[in-house]
Amino acid sequence: MLKPWTEAQPRLVEVAAGRAPADLVIRGGQWVNVHTREILPGHDIAVACGRVACVLPDASANIGPGTQVIEAAGRFMIPGLIDAHMHVESGMLTPAGFAAAVIPHGTTTIMHDPHEVANVMGLEGVRLMRDESLIQPITMLTQMPSCAPSAPGLETTGHPITAGEVAQAMGWDGIVGLGEMMNFPAVAAGDPAMLSEIAATRAAGKTVGGHYASPDLGRNFAAYVAGGAADDHETVAEAQAIARVRQGMGAMLRLGSAWHDVEAQITAITRRGLDPSGFMLCTDDCHAGTLVHDGHMDRAVRHAIDCGCDPLVAIQMATINTARHFGLERELGSITPGRRADVILTSDLTALPVEAVVAQGRLVAEGGRLMVDCPRIDWPDAARDTVRLGRGLGAGDFAVPATGGRATVRVIGVVENQAPTRALTAELPVVDGAVQPADGIARIALVERHRGTGGVVNGFVSGFGYQGRMAVASTVAHDSHHMIVVGTCGENMAAATARLAELGGGIAVFRDGAELAHVALPIAGLMSDAPAPDVAAAAQAVGEAIRACGCTMNNAVMQHVLLALVVIPELRISDLGLVDVSRFQLTDVVMA
Amino acid sequence: MLKPWTEAQPRLVEVAAGRAPADLVIRGGQWVNVHTREILPGHDIAVACGRVACVLPDASANIGPGTQVIEAAGRFMIPGLIDAHMHVESGMLTPAGFAAAVIPHGTTTIMHDPHEVANVMGLEGVRLMRDESLIQPITMLTQMPSCAPSAPGLETTGHPITAGEVAQAMGWDGIVGLGEMMNFPAVAAGDPAMLSEIAATRAAGKTVGGHYASPDLGRNFAAYVAGGAADDHETVAEAQAIARVRQGMGAMLRLGSAWHDVEAQITAITRRGLDPSGFMLCTDDCHAGTLVHDGHMDRAVRHAIDCGCDPLVAIQMATINTARHFGLERELGSITPGRRADVILTSDLTALPVEAVVAQGRLVAEGGRLMVDCPRIDWPDAARDTVRLGRGLGAGDFAVPATGGRATVRVIGVVENQAPTRALTAELPVVDGAVQPADGIARIALVERHRGTGGVVNGFVSGFGYQGRMAVASTVAHDSHHMIVVGTCGENMAAATARLAELGGGIAVFRDGAELAHVALPIAGLMSDAPAPDVAAAAQAVGEAIRACGCTMNNAVMQHVLLALVVIPELRISDLGLVDVSRFQLTDVVMA
Repeated sequence: MLKPWTEAQPRLVEVAAGRAPADLVIRGGQWVNVHTREILPGHDIAVACGRVACVLPDASANIGPGTQVIEAAGRFMIPGLIDAHMHVESGMLTPAGFAAAVIPHGTTTIMHDPHEVANVMGLEGVRLMRDESLIQPITMLTQMPSCAPSAPGLETTGHPITAGEVAQAMGWDGIVGLGEMMNFPAVAAGDPAMLSEIAATRAAGKTVGGHYASPDLGRNFAAYVAGGAADDHETVAEAQAIARVRQGMGAMLRLGSAWHDVEAQITAITRRGLDPSGFMLCTDDCHAGTLVHDGHMDRAVRHAIDCGCDPLVAIQMATINTARHFGLERELGSITPGRRADVILTSDLTALPVEAVVAQGRLVAEGGRLMVDCPRIDWPDAARDTVRLGRGLGAGDFAVPATGGRATVRVIGVVENQAPTRALTAELPVVDGAVQPADGIARIALVERHRGTGGVVNGFVSGFGYQGRMAVASTVAHDSHHMIVVGTCGENMAAATARLAELGGGIAVFRDGAELAHVALPIAGLMSDAPAPDVAAAAQAVGEAIRACGCTMNNAVMQHVLLALVVIPELRISDLGLVDVSRFQLTDVVMA
Repeated sequence: MLKPWTEAQPRLVEVAAGRAPADLVIRGGQWVNVHTREILPGHDIAVACGRVACVLPDASANIGPGTQVIEAAGRFMIPGLIDAHMHVESGMLTPAGFAAAVIPHGTTTIMHDPHEVANVMGLEGVRLMRDESLIQPITMLTQMPSCAPSAPGLETTGHPITAGEVAQAMGWDGIVGLGEMMNFPAVAAGDPAMLSEIAATRAAGKTVGGHYASPDLGRNFAAYVAGGAADDHETVAEAQAIARVRQGMGAMLRLGSAWHDVEAQITAITRRGLDPSGFMLCTDDCHAGTLVHDGHMDRAVRHAIDCGCDPLVAIQMATINTARHFGLERELGSITPGRRADVILTSDLTALPVEAVVAQGRLVAEGGRLMVDCPRIDWPDAARDTVRLGRGLGAGDFAVPATGGRATVRVIGVVENQAPTRALTAELPVVDGAVQPADGIARIALVERHRGTGGVVNGFVSGFGYQGRMAVASTVAHDSHHMIVVGTCGENMAAATARLAELGGGIAVFRDGAELAHVALPIAGLMSDAPAPDVAAAAQAVGEAIRACGCTMNNAVMQHVLLALVVIPELRISDLGLVDVSRFQLTDVVMA
């Protein structure tokens, strides 16, 4: 474990003075200086106690018999990259698995909000995520989730997070601040619980993550800013990002697996020439496949450069700007004395190949290969036993009862490439007292899985294009993470549900009574024990199985897992019923 | 008193939302945005609880019957200016008097190191300075002095500051960090006491002020940086400032009464185009006359602009950059929600006339006129009784004994416009067993004044050009602040000494047995109760009296008060004897 700076200080002085050998010397590189925004050829970095002791033209006096030497050989030495805001669970990996996946991409610091686990396991889940984060070879700091449930009264989470728990977590090691305060209407309305979560964070001297997902830049925005959020990663247009920075917030431009918000906003710097110091890069959500095939923060920096950003400015947006934002400027974010020795070697500042990665003074990756162990905690039974159905479900549990021969029902209309759904209606046949799906309209069920109530809420969904007798079930079901089952047939829905109960969570695809594919997510029903490539392969197989069921959507899994996200319009489903999100109230499936 | 942000938050939200009236609205100005580095015309600022609630194009909804309205009328609204490092005592004023003098110049935040008072009164003096600072209408934060005495073993202060006291002060309200760590050789040598002062500051999450007064940028510099200093204001050349910033320190460019270090260094930004975010402006030392006649931080910003700096960058260097450096970005440094409402109105961003000043939401100055009270603490007797001679001194106390008819003595050679002195020698006549001064060579005495030991150390000094029978005495006597008396005649020296004992400290000029002028500094022998214009006038009279005694030096008072500064070569005087600073040891006046 890395010593605090105060304990390392005397040795750092000895090494910097040239009186003691270093643990590591990185020799003969071009120092990418994010403080002055310069490239300084011909520098050595001497490292002790996992921290930079000195950076100077010749550190050969620090090379003793036990000193490891890495030859930079004229390559660029850039600070390890920082992800300013993200959710580990989006990769279907635990913190250890996530770290193992991103270290070869040069990510050495992650600010992550375990909001999904918090919805399933409450504060105890946050503590476990924090515990595994703290033992990684890179710096993984935890943002305390702020909004679980995200829509109180419209859904039931596994464990609600309270303002008191937020205040408690602010005293923990490894908690860097508050996770995105998504309940922006409540903050703007002066809701005491939300304001007190923010105040507790500020009182602890920590950073309040924001989330203002609205184009309104008037009084609602002003009130949200006054509430105290320090940053926002939900902006999607240049004017929105600029508005945040003008108001003294940090703008976190986002490139995730599905979020592509850098190109439209980085023009604030590249075209308008604004001071870049208030801008950062983040990923928010990355799937395992993205990590395995495309990268992580290196992908975000590369993309920013592709969008015309000066490479040094793009690197600042993933290093020093973020460190400063979180009050960690003297701890990380640049290759300067006292900071954690987080260094990437690369031979090209535009293509940004990540040739070697040093984190906290250790060579952790070389040529894309992980060189260290990313230790796991022993996840307790409580984390592995979160799919509690209370009873076995049969085909009949997925029926929507109605009288007569036909019924008019509400249908959740999934729209290609969009998060909002449409609130549709359809007239469907009624057979034996149950509404039947039709061509293009499947059944959807929300199966309660936290308390074993045996509750099932049923409805209809269109847009996936499923054919034949099939079902897809998932315990990833934002934000309260019950189980969402979509299918054309009750038997297959029951089979897929039972399979997930057996696996302890995941995503399963069934057709004609048999499993086509699954990804097992036994930890909280959200995360896998397996390495990222295995998870990515399983997730790919699930996607292919879904396509084999006739689905033609681009991101069918993502559309599926967002169907219970009752804060995004127009029509969603929760454990409490069908939700008319536009009116923020429950509604009936059968209309008349 | 200003409420903490956490208490103001609910009302700030109400005002920002437009649901409640503001305390103050500044209407129709051009918002100088130091985050984006833009000028945004047509903005209103609504203020509540002394903080900015919102900045938006139209805050008229916030104007209620009790709301004060200030018409910006198209003028620029810039954040109140921050002095990144200074010593209040240099103005011969207490914090209240200093605040009153600088508020009309637009200074709304001061980081001050009461190092001089600490030498006289120890930690208790720091506490008193902190106490008066905390009740001012502007933000005055205290840096805990780090190095008293500055030359242990070569001088005796009133009270030495210990590492334990530094750790204790870090827990106090109003302590922003450690004052300049001047003992750079000790830090580079790994001295445990100095390192522990720094570590205690870092452990408290506060900022370590640096002071590396050497052009050496090799291993000594590297070791000093590794020790943990976060900034430096002692740089005098572009390369020195750049070296600090490259190493992750803040460079504080200094424009004081006698320091003119901006012009040579701001070229790092104006010519080399480096990222300016690591650069700040400070004054370090300003005399009362400078404050009354020339200004304070407005003078520094104006000067930076005169040196070719973009006005917005110069303003950043006196606002947001400094706030960030001290970890106070969410508290002050920009006109954005939640921050202290510190605003200057000016109609010209180059000439920078300070037309109105708002601090913590109050109109504190208008047209150069102070509009508020700057309250004083009741300075205790211990602070007003610091000139303790122990006995009455007579002419004989200022004699240097010797045998024979002539003696070779060491002479402190004062050099025009330079801080270092020269170690000279002279052969002087001996009369009645005492060495006599000669034309161009005066007597100098260091009179112990902290413990009433009655001690007097005598020597000789050249360079002032004094004529006739005269003496100048001062209890401002850096750094240990005993009393320095320079004169041609023992009787006048004794009279000046007695006068300062009577005044409780100050500077007095005597000629032919009568006082020509004095400035009374009854608080710690360093500071006056009087307003800045009176102090400036008295100091000016002292300067004129010194010239009337034949002195032709440009800065005779400054040269006088530095004669005991035993860290600057070559020859100085302390309560322990004559000091050969080049060899860091005591030496004899009479050589053979």
